[in-house]
Amino acid sequence: MESKKERVLIFDTTLRDGEQSPGASMNTDEKLRVAQQLERLGVDIIEAGFPVASEGDFLSVQQIARKIRGPQIAGLARANQNDIDRAWEAIKEAAHPRIHTFISTSDIHLKYQLKKTRDQVLKEAFTSVAHACSYTPNVEFSPMDATRTDWDYLCDIVEATIAAGATTVNIPDTVGYAMPDEFGNLIAYLFEKVKNIHQAIVSVHCHNDLGLAVANSLAAIQRGARQVECTINGIGERAGNTAMEEVVMALETRKNFFGFSTGIKTEYIYQSSRLLTHITGIQVQPNKAIVGANAFAHESGIHQDGLIKEKITYEIMTPQSVGIAGTHLVLGKHSGRHAISEHLKKMGYKLSADEVKRVFVRFKELADVKKEIFDEDLEAIIYDEVYRVDEKYKLIYLNVVSGNVAIPTATMQMEVNKEIVQDAGFGVGPVDATFAAIRKITKTNYHLMKYTVNAVTGGTDAQGETAVQLQFNDKSVVGRGADPDVIVASAKAYINALNRLECLKRDVKKVKVV
Amino acid sequence: MESKKERVLIFDTTLRDGEQSPGASMNTDEKLRVAQQLERLGVDIIEAGFPVASEGDFLSVQQIARKIRGPQIAGLARANQNDIDRAWEAIKEAAHPRIHTFISTSDIHLKYQLKKTRDQVLKEAFTSVAHACSYTPNVEFSPMDATRTDWDYLCDIVEATIAAGATTVNIPDTVGYAMPDEFGNLIAYLFEKVKNIHQAIVSVHCHNDLGLAVANSLAAIQRGARQVECTINGIGERAGNTAMEEVVMALETRKNFFGFSTGIKTEYIYQSSRLLTHITGIQVQPNKAIVGANAFAHESGIHQDGLIKEKITYEIMTPQSVGIAGTHLVLGKHSGRHAISEHLKKMGYKLSADEVKRVFVRFKELADVKKEIFDEDLEAIIYDEVYRVDEKYKLIYLNVVSGNVAIPTATMQMEVNKEIVQDAGFGVGPVDATFAAIRKITKTNYHLMKYTVNAVTGGTDAQGETAVQLQFNDKSVVGRGADPDVIVASAKAYINALNRLECLKRDVKKVKVV
Repeated sequence: MESKKERVLIFDTTLRDGEQSPGASMNTDEKLRVAQQLERLGVDIIEAGFPVASEGDFLSVQQIARKIRGPQIAGLARANQNDIDRAWEAIKEAAHPRIHTFISTSDIHLKYQLKKTRDQVLKEAFTSVAHACSYTPNVEFSPMDATRTDWDYLCDIVEATIAAGATTVNIPDTVGYAMPDEFGNLIAYLFEKVKNIHQAIVSVHCHNDLGLAVANSLAAIQRGARQVECTINGIGERAGNTAMEEVVMALETRKNFFGFSTGIKTEYIYQSSRLLTHITGIQVQPNKAIVGANAFAHESGIHQDGLIKEKITYEIMTPQSVGIAGTHLVLGKHSGRHAISEHLKKMGYKLSADEVKRVFVRFKELADVKKEIFDEDLEAIIYDEVYRVDEKYKLIYLNVVSGNVAIPTATMQMEVNKEIVQDAGFGVGPVDATFAAIRKITKTNYHLMKYTVNAVTGGTDAQGETAVQLQFNDKSVVGRGADPDVIVASAKAYINALNRLECLKRDVKKVKVV
Repeated sequence: MESKKERVLIFDTTLRDGEQSPGASMNTDEKLRVAQQLERLGVDIIEAGFPVASEGDFLSVQQIARKIRGPQIAGLARANQNDIDRAWEAIKEAAHPRIHTFISTSDIHLKYQLKKTRDQVLKEAFTSVAHACSYTPNVEFSPMDATRTDWDYLCDIVEATIAAGATTVNIPDTVGYAMPDEFGNLIAYLFEKVKNIHQAIVSVHCHNDLGLAVANSLAAIQRGARQVECTINGIGERAGNTAMEEVVMALETRKNFFGFSTGIKTEYIYQSSRLLTHITGIQVQPNKAIVGANAFAHESGIHQDGLIKEKITYEIMTPQSVGIAGTHLVLGKHSGRHAISEHLKKMGYKLSADEVKRVFVRFKELADVKKEIFDEDLEAIIYDEVYRVDEKYKLIYLNVVSGNVAIPTATMQMEVNKEIVQDAGFGVGPVDATFAAIRKITKTNYHLMKYTVNAVTGGTDAQGETAVQLQFNDKSVVGRGADPDVIVASAKAYINALNRLECLKRDVKKVKVV
């Protein structure tokens, strides 16, 4: 073991690398909500964004730096003065700011992308870290595509950036190419060859292209790494990043093997996973480890038989340990506002009196048509009602006729910039007709990339939760809606997407992210 | 390296362990279709089921043994004479039959579940393998919960079963507890201590509870294992099994590192993944490695810039190598039946003349309302039209009225056992109303566990593909339907689930699976 530190730091990049998942772009409010949840979860460092990328990114990072006081707040910057200045500007009000700067170091990237020599890159890395250190002693450096970088050159650059003042050196497997053994050996090599390596914390940032991000991260920890960069649900570029819940629960469940701990309060894992799914519309598959719907479902008769006799026969961790407590029956239609308000607090939501009131109105409406209201139903209402963007467009009235012989028709009334507009649309089905009516009324015509519906809970009176992904140039937005009527939920989701698109238009990124 | 064999055998258990995923139960036709695809994909061994479990399981295994002539066909059996006799009866007509027998060996399982001593279990394992060998020399033995078994006892049992004639010994990480290093060391320990180990192929069977199934399998290969048990999309008990596509593409992409090959034709991976999703209704998450919708989506500007300059900057494998060829525009509304028939062949479907005719009728209907028809649209039609179960219930007519002020009403006509029945249903929305009408007409009332809708392709005129999961005692079935009208698709899916439930009722498993 190269280091005696028992603690592995959790560096969450859901808001930076995670946000690069197609359709996952979030607005400032949503990012702040995720950041609050990450704080509750106990992550050590939140990478809040890439401030130079756009005005919106800058403002989001700044807001998070101002409001989230527990974890360190990192801002990403390429290895140049302007990026670093901008990053510092965004994070300087944080209780614990960190500048994270990076440059590619593999010959492949140097030759084809940067068109620079190794010496040039070494110099730029050194200068940039030094410049970042003029603002704060908390500086992280990443040699991008490290796993395809010449090992000795990588040692040189790590040594140089630590000498320049970097207190964390992060080794990214940018293209998800490394195998656990190989990656562990690379980390061990750094500890062997880099003289000043013990002056910094070694971190890793793995991608999951071959399904090995978690294994690579754990192999690195075994060889001395003490920080893991990861995301909730493993979202991120392509096949995503290391899934936080998996790496944390591996360390936790196999403490006897690793001997390390993290600061994560594992009982908030499931809630964090659901929050992210709600906000981004990126579903978790049923067989996803830890947070998938079937992760704790024992289907085989032999397994079930064993579990009845003794839990430990087939269960290495409990669903309760990650905050899955079975579905909660909340309250019936006669529950009062106070009871709902208390329950929302218990679920971990801090809402204003006005927000509770709005949730309560929707709860009453739902209780009229749905017998049993579960935590998931309340969550859907909260996301639909409270966490919304500024609304240019609103749904007032919708009526639909359809069937396998009728011509599907939607009659609709909407508020557009405070003005009431109505029209009818036809289509191949009621959803298509509804979307046609919305397009007519709003005079918009974005490409519909994806449309999904999930029942929030079981039962035929479940709320439908819909997601609509619209394309805007090379970007996309996901809108979401919830309603017991799936067509109404679809209309809400489409309108929500249009409203979010308006936000996006105001914040087109000038620079895009790593 | 403990073995000189360069080839790693792929043992697919999608039809056995995979089928244990909640809601994934398949009927014989569907299993046969998956088996055909596995043959096309080039797997070495297909575990077709657990013949003693039920009459249906037995018949499915028998059908697969008769019709799939390339790969070996394995039947599972507990370590007792009756199970083994039944397994042999099911697979004996296979070109290459294999009996796979297992018994738990960990003290936890011995104490709490089996209530047997180590000696008893050792004796039963030996006797059972010997009995299986009286039928065929191709016998596989699995010591269940091997990773929590005393290592020396495990060596004893492996040695005894090889002495009894087992030609494959499979080491299962039944509860998904092992870490790659540890698991690799266990395999190395077997090679070191078990005298006759080289008389058998060592296999591994990993579960993904901590996200490490693929890494554990690869670690085992590095230490001498030459067979990997895995499933398409990594489905299976709880968080599932080793994902075949990930372990295969890791071996393929990093051939320089491992030096092994498999018989998998990787260009069929994506098609296999989609087939399984269609049949089971178990979605793959967008950030799933290899087969997820975003697995090859490069979102960041810096990455995109690099890719334009040179592919290898950010791409370690091509989407084409796993059969993702971009969305194919098929044919327009003026395409004839011959063109469609040719195209279906190109897509890999072997359909009868009558089936092609039915697909063509549906294609024409769709082309009337949808401008562009993609491969995915044809696939949805094939699954909806051709691959159906016997139908007790059929949809004749559906008309729906709904909206955010109307009382959602569905008027419906169905064929029930060749008789026309009609009724109307009300609900909280059009889907709920439709389901209510179906329940009235069919006089059924199963619990609705899940309801999902996905657009098959982009665009507002996309077909909706719906899945309905209904509960039947402690089992469940998933029904699927496709139609441009999402309400009609929902009705089809509900009715399909009812029809599949009728099949399930006829085949209630007496014994349940490992």
